[in-house]
Amino acid sequence: MQEGVEVGARITLAEVATEAGVSPSTVSKVLNGRSDVSNRTRARVERLLTLHGYRRRTPSPPRSQLVELVFHELDSVWAMELVRGVEAVARANRADVVLTRSGTRHAPGPDWIEGVLRRRPRGVVLVFSSLPAEVKHRLRSWNIPFVIVDPTGAPDPDVPSVGSANWAGGLAATRHLTGHGHRRVAIVTGFEDMLCSLARLDGYRSAMAMAGLPADPRLVRHGDYSVRSGFEHGMDLLAGPGRPTAVFAGSDLQALGVLEAARVRELRVPQDLSVVGYDDVPLAQWSSPPLTTVHQPLRHMAEEATRMLFGPRTPGRAARRIELATRLVVRQSTAASPPG
Amino acid sequence: MQEGVEVGARITLAEVATEAGVSPSTVSKVLNGRSDVSNRTRARVERLLTLHGYRRRTPSPPRSQLVELVFHELDSVWAMELVRGVEAVARANRADVVLTRSGTRHAPGPDWIEGVLRRRPRGVVLVFSSLPAEVKHRLRSWNIPFVIVDPTGAPDPDVPSVGSANWAGGLAATRHLTGHGHRRVAIVTGFEDMLCSLARLDGYRSAMAMAGLPADPRLVRHGDYSVRSGFEHGMDLLAGPGRPTAVFAGSDLQALGVLEAARVRELRVPQDLSVVGYDDVPLAQWSSPPLTTVHQPLRHMAEEATRMLFGPRTPGRAARRIELATRLVVRQSTAASPPG
Repeated sequence: MQEGVEVGARITLAEVATEAGVSPSTVSKVLNGRSDVSNRTRARVERLLTLHGYRRRTPSPPRSQLVELVFHELDSVWAMELVRGVEAVARANRADVVLTRSGTRHAPGPDWIEGVLRRRPRGVVLVFSSLPAEVKHRLRSWNIPFVIVDPTGAPDPDVPSVGSANWAGGLAATRHLTGHGHRRVAIVTGFEDMLCSLARLDGYRSAMAMAGLPADPRLVRHGDYSVRSGFEHGMDLLAGPGRPTAVFAGSDLQALGVLEAARVRELRVPQDLSVVGYDDVPLAQWSSPPLTTVHQPLRHMAEEATRMLFGPRTPGRAARRIELATRLVVRQSTAASPPG
Repeated sequence: MQEGVEVGARITLAEVATEAGVSPSTVSKVLNGRSDVSNRTRARVERLLTLHGYRRRTPSPPRSQLVELVFHELDSVWAMELVRGVEAVARANRADVVLTRSGTRHAPGPDWIEGVLRRRPRGVVLVFSSLPAEVKHRLRSWNIPFVIVDPTGAPDPDVPSVGSANWAGGLAATRHLTGHGHRRVAIVTGFEDMLCSLARLDGYRSAMAMAGLPADPRLVRHGDYSVRSGFEHGMDLLAGPGRPTAVFAGSDLQALGVLEAARVRELRVPQDLSVVGYDDVPLAQWSSPPLTTVHQPLRHMAEEATRMLFGPRTPGRAARRIELATRLVVRQSTAASPPG
């Protein structure tokens, strides 16, 4: 038996080869991460290895001091906060960070995994909600730990992940507004296919109900977390009479869009309109007026995720899910409801 | 003679060893990047090798597909723009990006170079104005190409670098204001020890002189490129009579601080006060009102720098310096000077 290969108990290399219809040396190549195997063959062999509970006995070749950070979206204002968190913990562990951009906002593309396997990183932090099964198998068979940082909610249940308390954030933002006497409170939230948007919206609805306020469907808007979407919904919400006296925006960027709509509509913030954001990215404190917002601890989430990579392994245990608290940060964009 | 070592013409390995007072095998170890040589000895041997024009004949071991990006400051709003530019070109060349934070805003610290030599990257992009001589020697002796992206001006003359036209940017911003009839134009610029601050200030002075306006030293302020510094200088400049009708801020962050000072002083932008920023980072278009600013092509600068790493090598030629153009982006924070 080849060094570092633990098959014995359940199945031998030769049996895997027979079952896959390939030669034992092809199985070896797959095990050693060689690139001269077709993707289809590799996939078939890896599926069988996973099926039969194959696991490399040791992380065979020396592991590099790299942490991989894989995202879809480098343009997001989140991105830099996450990079900072990963970098800080990697640095404390004398590791460097490799950045990869891949896939969609839901799952990474198929391309990045080859590079990861070649570099043998200390671990992988993924900013996605789900991972293709094959990717999980390959990372596991190479003993490369991985963890999801998922600001959008609902990650894979079998992958360790770090998120934050979206429902509680939506509740806190809205209660802050109803507590200041606002009765017509609008919400501009994010994509309908992101659980975080739904969770925040439910938090808003619960807070409205707790204050005995009716849920007016005209005051509930779905946008895309961009400044433009905040501006457009803001312009629409703030037109004419019956307008809301407060808007809870699903992101700080949307809140900036609402601020600009208020300026164009000649409404003063916070005297005529209160605005609450979400995320508390650095620009929230730089807006004019500085934004009251829900602090989503993005940097801290990335730190926790990276720490999981360096922590002791507990194979076989259920995947760990950490949900960090959100909290309201009160700045100058909110005030008591105007009389009327 | 050892493979890959080109000494012959000028000096032999044994002569270097004699001159350094070490054994030839120690010189070999230094050449091969082994860590069992004291830093002092390594530095002495490398100095001699450099002095005698030693260069590895070929990039001996296979080079990884990594580009190293080294900064001081991950918190800067510049950082993400630079990451994006490096990532885009690295990706197009099927390479990944390793991020390292090190040193001060002038030069990287001593720690990062070991990791770089271990990883044998395709090349290194440094966001610094100067590099310690030993670092340059070591990168050169390993044939690792490197380039400086330097938004602050004045990089090492013997290192390839990419910058942008700071003086022209300061001139364009100020001429835009004087062209709108502003006569009392203030400037809040950056650190006095950064050439980019001085270049922008000189651009401002030339534009004022071209418009036949006196240079009032009370209208010239040095800050630190932060929002707070813009706010504090803004509060001071905008107090009482004789206040400027326009402020040219040295960064978009400072400009946001000036906007907030205007709000607190109950001045409308742009009706009562025009504000111009610098950099055109994404948040410039999200401020309320959207900022007129000087576009510094940070992403493009990082792209150009990264492209230099993948381009053909031209050893022996003078280091290349690229200076990209800046341009004024007119948005809504500037208007004609108020009457009076």
